Amino acid sequence: MGTRPLDVLNDALGSSVLVRLKGAREFRGTLTGYDIHMNLVLEEAEEILEDGTRKLGVVIVRGDNIVYVSP
Amino acid sequence: MGTRPLDVLNDALGSSVLVRLKGAREFRGTLTGYDIHMNLVLEEAEEILEDGTRKLGVVIVRGDNIVYVSP
Amino acid sequence: MGTRPLDVLNDALGSSVLVRLKGAREFRGTLTGYDIHMNLVLEEAEEILEDGTRKLGVVIVRGDNIVYVSP
Amino acid sequence: MGTRPLDVLNDALGSSVLVRLKGAREFRGTLTGYDIHMNLVLEEAEEILEDGTRKLGVVIVRGDNIVYVSP
Amino acid sequence: MGTRPLDVLNDALGSSVLVRLKGAREFRGTLTGYDIHMNLVLEEAEEILEDGTRKLGVVIVRGDNIVYVSP
Amino acid sequence: MGTRPLDVLNDALGSSVLVRLKGAREFRGTLTGYDIHMNLVLEEAEEILEDGTRKLGVVIVRGDNIVYVSP
Amino acid sequence: MGTRPLDVLNDALGSSVLVRLKGAREFRGTLTGYDIHMNLVLEEAEEILEDGTRKLGVVIVRGDNIVYVSP
Repeated sequence: MGTRPLDVLNDALGSSVLVRLKGAREFRGTLTGYDIHMNLVLEEAEEILEDGTRKLGVVIVRGDNIVYVSP
Repeated sequence: MGTRPLDVLNDALGSSVLVRLKGAREFRGTLTGYDIHMNLVLEEAEEILEDGTRKLGVVIVRGDNIVYVSP
Repeated sequence: MGTRPLDVLNDALGSSVLVRLKGAREFRGTLTGYDIHMNLVLEEAEEILEDGTRKLGVVIVRGDNIVYVSP
Repeated sequence: MGTRPLDVLNDALGSSVLVRLKGAREFRGTLTGYDIHMNLVLEEAEEILEDGTRKLGVVIVRGDNIVYVSP
Repeated sequence: MGTRPLDVLNDALGSSVLVRLKGAREFRGTLTGYDIHMNLVLEEAEEILEDGTRKLGVVIVRGDNIVYVSP
Repeated sequence: MGTRPLDVLNDALGSSVLVRLKGAREFRGTLTGYDIHMNLVLEEAEEILEDGTRKLGVVIVRGDNIVYVSP
Repeated sequence: MGTRPLDVLNDALGSSVLVRLKGAREFRGTLTGYDIHMNLVLEEAEEILEDGTRKLGVVIVRGDNIVYVSP
């Protein structure tokens, strides 16, 4: 199976990640946790909007909305 | 796995949280409960509308509609 | 986990609840039952339409359509 | 849990029910069976269209399309 | 539970059925098999289009696209 | 249950199949494998576009996008 | 069952793959891992846009967004 997806998430703990959601929404933040459903915890998170960013602090992102995560 | 998402919810019990749902709907309220499906109980909840807010009191929000929760 | 969502439903048995579904549909009725999927039984239910209400009597609402329930 | 939703269906066996599906489609027919997924068997069923009805006889309606059932 | 939905399918084996899918697509064909997910096997199947029909021969229709089946 | 849907797939191994996906996309190719989720392996696959075809070689098609498969 | 879909993914480890997602998004990259949900790890990944490409480096693509993977 090569490198499993959740292992890549685990290696990214403490690093900044880009999270793309369905509907073209994007978040950037420091990955501080996740679970087997790919629910993520991001700190110092911000939503990337067309005309700037929206600071959100800590966010729990539901895994089933995620299109991709890029560490 | 770092800090698990449900642990972050647990730490947020009693605090105000912002809940973003699919379809761009947003709620704010005091988190007073949750379950493993990420169904949430909010008290003194209000739906944030474009032109104001709608007071809802207690609401049970279905987890599968949630995009993110920000404590 | 604080107050679990299904416990809040249980406490609402016999009371009037507002049920918001996906697609902005709303129902109001007396909650007389539910199950673990959050399927609900409402009595004296009415659908709230833009231009009035539609009386439905007893309805079984599928849980997976629900956005929120407000007792 | 009060009256469970499937018990309400069971009590409605042999009676006429209104079934509302996602996408605003509606059926009326005599409920003659169901299963735990809320798949329904309707007899003498008709689809209610904007400009009349379409007679369907026996139909098996998939539970996951159902918004509500009203006995 | 009355007549279970899968029993109605079983009784329809060898007969012509109308299958309505999400997105208003319709098929007609002879039901020659099914499984517990309501995946269907139709023979001499044809898709019913606005301006005629499209002959498909044997088709396996995924159950999760089905709105209703009418024997 | 008559002929089970997966048995029909099994009999189609090595033959050309037409695969219709949600959103009206169509593929044609030689079925060389499948699994219980109806994920398919097609060889010499091509996507059928309005204005021609796009050759894809080997493709793994996710079962949950499939509307129907016609051997 | 012929060649199982996940075996085809396994054989593609280390090779370039094209990944088509719902909503017509496409990615190309070197497949370095996957799991049973068809979540994928791509390296040197790029999103293929109408007017060029967006370099993403490593990405974890959620399996439930995938329409097809072509090795």
